Amino acid sequence: MKLYDLELSGNCYKVRLFAALANIELEIVPVDFMAGEHKSSVMLALNPFGQLPVLEHGEVVLRDSQAMLVYLARLYDLESWLPSDPQQMAEVQQWLSTAANEIQHGPNVARLVDKFGFEFDKPTALDISAGILTLLNDHLAEHDWLALGHPTIADCAVMPYVAIAPEGGISLDDYPHILAWIDRIKQLPGFIGMPGQV
Amino acid sequence: MKLYDLELSGNCYKVRLFAALANIELEIVPVDFMAGEHKSSVMLALNPFGQLPVLEHGEVVLRDSQAMLVYLARLYDLESWLPSDPQQMAEVQQWLSTAANEIQHGPNVARLVDKFGFEFDKPTALDISAGILTLLNDHLAEHDWLALGHPTIADCAVMPYVAIAPEGGISLDDYPHILAWIDRIKQLPGFIGMPGQV
Repeated sequence: MKLYDLELSGNCYKVRLFAALANIELEIVPVDFMAGEHKSSVMLALNPFGQLPVLEHGEVVLRDSQAMLVYLARLYDLESWLPSDPQQMAEVQQWLSTAANEIQHGPNVARLVDKFGFEFDKPTALDISAGILTLLNDHLAEHDWLALGHPTIADCAVMPYVAIAPEGGISLDDYPHILAWIDRIKQLPGFIGMPGQV
Repeated sequence: MKLYDLELSGNCYKVRLFAALANIELEIVPVDFMAGEHKSSVMLALNPFGQLPVLEHGEVVLRDSQAMLVYLARLYDLESWLPSDPQQMAEVQQWLSTAANEIQHGPNVARLVDKFGFEFDKPTALDISAGILTLLNDHLAEHDWLALGHPTIADCAVMPYVAIAPEGGISLDDYPHILAWIDRIKQLPGFIGMPGQV
């Protein structure tokens, strides 16, 4: 199973992290993002969105990191990481949407501006970040994990861009419950980090 | 099963639409958004995010429209709308992420500015919209439905804000395959519309 990967991408790290925690072997294929290789005709044929990561497993080709977590969890019957029970699956799904929505457009966009020089709207990204980090911190004041009382793919989807938020000029010092949650994730067997992570 | 609802919300409409297509009965509880009722203590106790819709079914309370689609599909074993096969579930998931990401921050934000006077960054929303509508149009040039060759919850998640994009100043005239797809959805048995829809 190939993961077309960029080491500095939080979206790529979501998949590497979950694979490491769940003991799933990935063949990492580095893509030269700075040279624009993710927009090459070969990569666009795999992913018309022109983004990383891309997961390729036989005839299966996926372009979205949340979908990759769902795929791996269901493929290997990892019920604890993504239960098939309707209520439990939906509770995990809520956080997959949060990862694609507020986390993507908050901490991720702020970091794209500061670290990579993208000309996105930083004030909007900071507003979105402040809102979602406060909600996350409040939630984690009462819960050790985002959903279901144990680690799930929700934690793998949400944590990466939160833990590198300082690279977008966002301090996590005011969010002690978030920092404690990141530490809990770091203690999980098989954990791997990424550059820039708190 | 109660849906705390706002008629003019595309996120609420996602759930009403899927319930109508799948013949699921919902008790609609209108919430007075303009009066700020979604931020009342009662509503914040149900959803700390302070957003609509909220789905309440016994002890189950969900705050995210994609999660509600997943919940209903799994609860009623609607395999065709959300298959349990890993590859097929992941293909649907990709579009749930698109709904929470590009659709939410593209056509939805543009409409919030134009129709409701929110002070969000309209140029960014228009850029995101142009990108995702082009990708969607290209995809739908070769596929009748977003995933799996038949209607799924992916269509219910993505279509609502696309079909009301003109309310955010975004014409769909340049996207004929999107318009044809919306028409296909409208032909599904049980279809219901929402105000402002093309």
